[in-house]
Parts: sequence; structure tokens; C-alpha cells
Amino acid sequence: MRCLVLGAGGFIGTNLCLALGARGLPVTGFGRAAAPPPALARVDGLDWRCGNVERLPDPDALVAGHSHLFDLIGAGLPNSSNDNPAQIVADGMPPRIRLLDACRRQGVRRIVFASSGGTVYGPGTAAPIPETAATDPISAYGIGKLAAEKYLALYHHLYGLDYRVLRIANAYGPHQHPLREQGLVASVLHRLLTDTPIPVWGDGSVVRDYVHIGDVVSAMLAVAFGEDGPPRLFNVGSGVGRSVRSVIADAARVAGRPARIVAMPGRSADVAVNVLDSLRLRQRTGWSPSVGWEAGLADTADWLRRALIKS
Amino acid sequence: MRCLVLGAGGFIGTNLCLALGARGLPVTGFGRAAAPPPALARVDGLDWRCGNVERLPDPDALVAGHSHLFDLIGAGLPNSSNDNPAQIVADGMPPRIRLLDACRRQGVRRIVFASSGGTVYGPGTAAPIPETAATDPISAYGIGKLAAEKYLALYHHLYGLDYRVLRIANAYGPHQHPLREQGLVASVLHRLLTDTPIPVWGDGSVVRDYVHIGDVVSAMLAVAFGEDGPPRLFNVGSGVGRSVRSVIADAARVAGRPARIVAMPGRSADVAVNVLDSLRLRQRTGWSPSVGWEAGLADTADWLRRALIKS
Repeated sequence: MRCLVLGAGGFIGTNLCLALGARGLPVTGFGRAAAPPPALARVDGLDWRCGNVERLPDPDALVAGHSHLFDLIGAGLPNSSNDNPAQIVADGMPPRIRLLDACRRQGVRRIVFASSGGTVYGPGTAAPIPETAATDPISAYGIGKLAAEKYLALYHHLYGLDYRVLRIANAYGPHQHPLREQGLVASVLHRLLTDTPIPVWGDGSVVRDYVHIGDVVSAMLAVAFGEDGPPRLFNVGSGVGRSVRSVIADAARVAGRPARIVAMPGRSADVAVNVLDSLRLRQRTGWSPSVGWEAGLADTADWLRRALIKS
Repeated sequence: MRCLVLGAGGFIGTNLCLALGARGLPVTGFGRAAAPPPALARVDGLDWRCGNVERLPDPDALVAGHSHLFDLIGAGLPNSSNDNPAQIVADGMPPRIRLLDACRRQGVRRIVFASSGGTVYGPGTAAPIPETAATDPISAYGIGKLAAEKYLALYHHLYGLDYRVLRIANAYGPHQHPLREQGLVASVLHRLLTDTPIPVWGDGSVVRDYVHIGDVVSAMLAVAFGEDGPPRLFNVGSGVGRSVRSVIADAARVAGRPARIVAMPGRSADVAVNVLDSLRLRQRTGWSPSVGWEAGLADTADWLRRALIKS
């Protein structure tokens, strides 16, 4: 058994590689950087491959020899994805499909795909959202994630290629880079710790489901190595909705710093409320979120402080 | 008001152009052929444009001056689409998105998109299928149609571009070319009339919903020029399921010819049963299918006989 992690240098990828390594599982990390992030120095026997999944000369060579593939590669950011949706489809989807072809040829046993619980469902869905809810994305990013899910199901139907999809809520925690505009918690805590003003889009009432990265990684391991058979698609979230303003207030309390807020216009790709129902994952795998909100914030703040000291 | 019909030389397009022309609506037809099909000689003032939507040098120039756009362009056939799904996405989706961009820039008032009720829902759905059923295509063709639907909804959300999606069952009737392997009814009737053996894939138990082209066209007109507001997505079918074997038997009776059947292996892109529930369309627009099955078969056989005499 050997795991291939695509997007291994990113937030989720770094945490997943650490968890796989801690369990003694051999890991190949694939990322854009020439070398793995320093945090992965702890992973014994990590095989690092540098490349861009959109321009892979030989997908079979990358995939060969791996039993499990974790696809954590995003397709841009939800907001910027609407600037050029045609490009995202043209660049992003065909390489992903060619990767699936390589997986079936090379006998990969299971693919775990990180989909987006925050963008595939779209607006107007009652919270918490079950996996059976309507999928009406309001970003090209969400459409891309949904199409990737559908291709996995197609390849399972046609070729028996096994997979699991995790529709992940807003993950936060250590190793989330605060300056990439990907995670509210990391960004807010970083701004608090560096005494920088915090931009708030719209009235700050947008509600999201924040799930700690430790719980996301445990969900990935549960579905990657758990039982066979359907269902193959699971939400992963805390089930708790928090507004932007309440996240800022909580983070300020945990960081022990006052928040300076700068009002910004609302964004069209923002769904008003997005909270996931993860009952299916709990029932099928025994998973449950184990990191409390305040503890998760403190954990993230600690990591950011250490990262800031280093830089 | 001026209508642009993409795929105007095809089966649905030819019938739609005839219906629009009969109502005195100015029509631009867009197709791959240098000239419109002979049947469209009856459409007064038809403006014909020749081109390939996947290689449009200037989408704005095509779209400008039209109030309504009917997108009837397929993306290959459901079965062959699985041979090279990456290519279908790379070639088919980006031009479609660029066309949407042109529509919003040029002020197109409404887009009517011909989606596929036979492939977007996938297997395991109870018949008859409502629009709210799960969408799990087992062909790249179905995924492409679904993605196109999602992009329409996205552009409506972002830019207010109005649209209607029709998930059409198995359309049949005059002007369906019997040698393109697209329609069972046309193919079977043509083979009966020319005393050619009829291939049957699998055991012939696959059940489909056959809807006459006259009813499809009336549905298109109803949603194109009807009321504003949601819902914007409708099934169009007869609501009656017929097996391949029963279609052949009925067609043989109507044609007055015996059927010679050749058994072929089953196909992976075939859903076992697909019958659509069109209640939403009936309730919202007053539409109902008006062409009976036997009358529709006779109508199609008559057209094929005339087409055969000409050729």
C-alpha cells in the first residue's frame, strides 16, 4: 500500500501527509514546489514529485505503484473562478480526466477527492445541508468540483475504479497559509496577531461551517481505508454555522487582541448560509469532529505565532 | 424579436425553424452545412450562417441582434462520448461558455437549452423521473449536458442572463435522419421500410420515453416566450415507458412490414429505464403532449417513405 497525495504542499495536503506518515504509511507527495514544505521533513521516506497536474507529461508514470490517490488540488479560488470560467474548464478538467484514465490503467485501488461543501450546493438550501440536497453552484469553481465528482462516478460505473468524495466545509487549522485568502480563520488570526485591519465583505453575516483540519484528515483516512460499497460521497463539517463577525469576535478573544474591521462590498460567489450535515459520514464510518472551536482557534493561533517567529 | 437556432440543420433544429417560421418569427439558422437543409426552404427570410460552434471566431457577431437563442447543439452521442471524455470537455465546454459571455454582452433576452432527459439522471432513479431527482450521468455526454445547465444557472445568478433548460426525452418524428444512430424510431422504421435487419443491444428490455418532435417544439415555444421567473428547468416527455422490443413491434405493425432482429451486446451507457415526469411543464405552461404514439409512428413512417423516394 502506497499513497499518492496531489497538492501535497498545500494546507490539507501537508496535514494529510503528516497523518499518513505518522501511521507508517509510505507517501508520495506531488506539488508545484521543487521541494516539499519544511513541515514534511518529519515524514519518513517521503517521495516528493514536483509538477503541475495541468501539464503532466505522463500521468501513468506519476500514478504507477500507488494503491491510494488523494486528489486535493483546487481549481483556483471560488471568487476569482468566475473571472474566466471558460479557461478553468479548458485547463482544469481534461488533465483530471486523463489522470483518471491513468488510475484505471495502473490499478489504483481507491481515489479520495476533496470536493467543496461550500460551493457545490449553491444558495437557497436549508441548513444543515445533506448530501442529497440540490447542487446549484454559483461559481465556476463549484461547477468544476461537481463535474469532477460526476467523472469519478462515471469511471466507477464504466471501469469499477473505486473512489470517495468528501465535500469539505471551511477547513481551518495549522499549515493554512494566512496570506492566500483561502481561509477566514487563518487570515483573521494572522491579521489580529500582526495588528492588521481585517476586511469584511458585505455585512459580515455570511454563515459558514468551520471544521478543524484534524477532523478533515481523520475523515479522509476513514473513507480511504474503510469499507467498500456505497455511498461514496460524504459531507465533512462541524454542523455548526458561524457568521464572519462571530468568527472575528471569537478569534479576537482567543488571540487576546482587538479587531480592526474594514468594510468591503459583497461578493457574488458568496452563498449566504452554508452548514453541512455530516450524519452520513458519522453513521458509515464512526467519524465525528473531535476538535472544539475554541481549542481549534487556539491551536491555529499557536501555529501562526510559531510561523511568524520563524519568518 | 429575432431567434437564433444553433444546430438548425439537425433534427430538432429543422422542426423548430419550421415552427418559428410558421409563426412569422424571423429566424437565423446556424449549422455546419454551407446551406440550410432543403426542408427549410419553406421558412421565409431565413438567415443561414454556416460554422462550427467549437471554432467560432467571433461569438458576439453571431449572437448580435437576436432576442432568443435556442441551443440545440449536441456534444457527440451518449455512447461514443465515453471513448474520449477529456476531449469532449476540452473541445465542447469552453466555446459554450464564451457563447454565454457573448449573449450577456449582446443583450440576448432568453436562452433555451436542449438538455438530455435520457442521460442526465443516470441509473437507479424511480420512473417517472421528476426534475428534482439525483443527476448521476453514466456518460460523458450526460456530464457535459449537466455542466452546461449549471453554467446557464451561474450566468443567470451572476449577470441576470435569462434561460430555460428542457431535459428532453427520446424525441422522434419527421426530419430525424435514420442513419445517424440517434433515434431508435427513425432507425427501426427505416430498416423496416428498406427490409434491413434491426440490431438490438442487450435483451431489448431498455425502456425509454418517446416524445414526438411536434410536442418537443411546442414545449420549446412555450418556455421561450412564456412567463418570467423560476422554475427554469423542465422535463419534456410523454411519461410513457416503452421497451426497445415493443417499439420494434409497434413500428412493424404501423409500417406493415415484418421485423428481422440481430442481437448485439449491451452498452455501458444505457440506463435500464428512463421515463420522464413532465408535470412541472404541464402545470407551468399548460403544455401537454398532443401526438399519440401510433399517429406519431405513422407520421414518421410517411416522412421516411417520402425521403426514401427522393433519395
